[in-house]
Amino acid sequence: MSKAPRLYVESPLAEGTPVPLAAEQAHYLLNVMRRADGDPVALFNGRDGEWRGTIRRTGKRTAEADLSEKLREQTAPPDIHYCFAPIKRARLDFIAQKATELGASLLQPVLTRYTVAERVKTERLAANAIEAAEQCGILWVPDVAEPVPFERFLADRDPGRTLIFCDEAALLANPIAALQAVPEGPLAVLIGPEGGFSGEERQALLRAENVAAISLGPRVMRADTAGIAAMTLIQAVKGDWR
Amino acid sequence: MSKAPRLYVESPLAEGTPVPLAAEQAHYLLNVMRRADGDPVALFNGRDGEWRGTIRRTGKRTAEADLSEKLREQTAPPDIHYCFAPIKRARLDFIAQKATELGASLLQPVLTRYTVAERVKTERLAANAIEAAEQCGILWVPDVAEPVPFERFLADRDPGRTLIFCDEAALLANPIAALQAVPEGPLAVLIGPEGGFSGEERQALLRAENVAAISLGPRVMRADTAGIAAMTLIQAVKGDWR
Repeated sequence: MSKAPRLYVESPLAEGTPVPLAAEQAHYLLNVMRRADGDPVALFNGRDGEWRGTIRRTGKRTAEADLSEKLREQTAPPDIHYCFAPIKRARLDFIAQKATELGASLLQPVLTRYTVAERVKTERLAANAIEAAEQCGILWVPDVAEPVPFERFLADRDPGRTLIFCDEAALLANPIAALQAVPEGPLAVLIGPEGGFSGEERQALLRAENVAAISLGPRVMRADTAGIAAMTLIQAVKGDWR
Repeated sequence: MSKAPRLYVESPLAEGTPVPLAAEQAHYLLNVMRRADGDPVALFNGRDGEWRGTIRRTGKRTAEADLSEKLREQTAPPDIHYCFAPIKRARLDFIAQKATELGASLLQPVLTRYTVAERVKTERLAANAIEAAEQCGILWVPDVAEPVPFERFLADRDPGRTLIFCDEAALLANPIAALQAVPEGPLAVLIGPEGGFSGEERQALLRAENVAAISLGPRVMRADTAGIAAMTLIQAVKGDWR
């Protein structure tokens, strides 16, 4: 309704400094939302908190925002990397949105053996993450990394960051108990493709340092559902839902 | 690949009794999947387990299946009703699929104060539930109930079925602890619309018998995300993921 539109910008946010709006943002505010000069807008950039501002038209298709008040102090995202085998396009958009809503700090595509490798457009992932952050009142946008092959992902990872993956054959059937055993500290979750991990990949994961396998119940789930379920349990047991 | 297509049927499944396939199922098998006479198919009906069968063409556009072997015994779904304020159409399809994957036994649309009430097509919800059950190896399809207004939903509910709803102001911030306090027995979860519950609705829920409020963390989530997160936690703490 008359709620102020909420936009992610890259510029610094500070009182007295006008904030230039991108062409698409000006179009969205002026033409799609039919906002006028002086109407309110909310802005965040992932560093300077959230600010209230007002729209100032600077041309037929351009606008800036004048900041009036800091609404919220910046907070840091939970340190959880969301790593995933890319899936079909529409559901990839969805994954980027949901992982952002659930508080991921990085989106990392990982090309596994059974990944049906369509080309991954990281700009598109980033656009979906921004949209979710804007709509869900989140104060940051997760970074989006370029896709890496599974072997390189595993070889290059920081072993100090516990890697959680979903494994139907996990030793502990109860995922909450399995997550409670994970040490405090930075986390990553790795979600396989629809076909699951290959036998070699699974063995490599189980052999790797500081890796925890969790089970997501007796039913098969699509990869996007498994991703949301895993992020939910991680946030509830180890993250900021406690 | 050459994996047998898996279909939900309404007919009884028993050795020696041919199973008629619906016109769309015959079309799917013969034209979309390009299967021929004698090719394998898997069938379930929610009562008689899962069966392996072979396709037998009976006309240009019709086919039956001859059953050869029972693959899995029937199991019952977890007794969890998924009750939700309807949202926009594409995401409503998604909700029906995800709730099915996560093991709901009933899909119940509830019309709350802030529900943006587009017409709810229950046949479409059912079609999405069937698709998810077929693809995810689930042995049943949740029932789909007609939409009911919030007040009637609350007045007519069985108070022996614990009702769980998501409440940003829940007393216990930790959703796992809140769910651990819920008694064993049948469950229902109620997911509000994007605008949340009205103040009156929230008060009515908190006053009702055998109702538990859970919090889903410090960030706002879309209604569909909240639904998946709530079902995940319920399955992990009270359901069949333990």
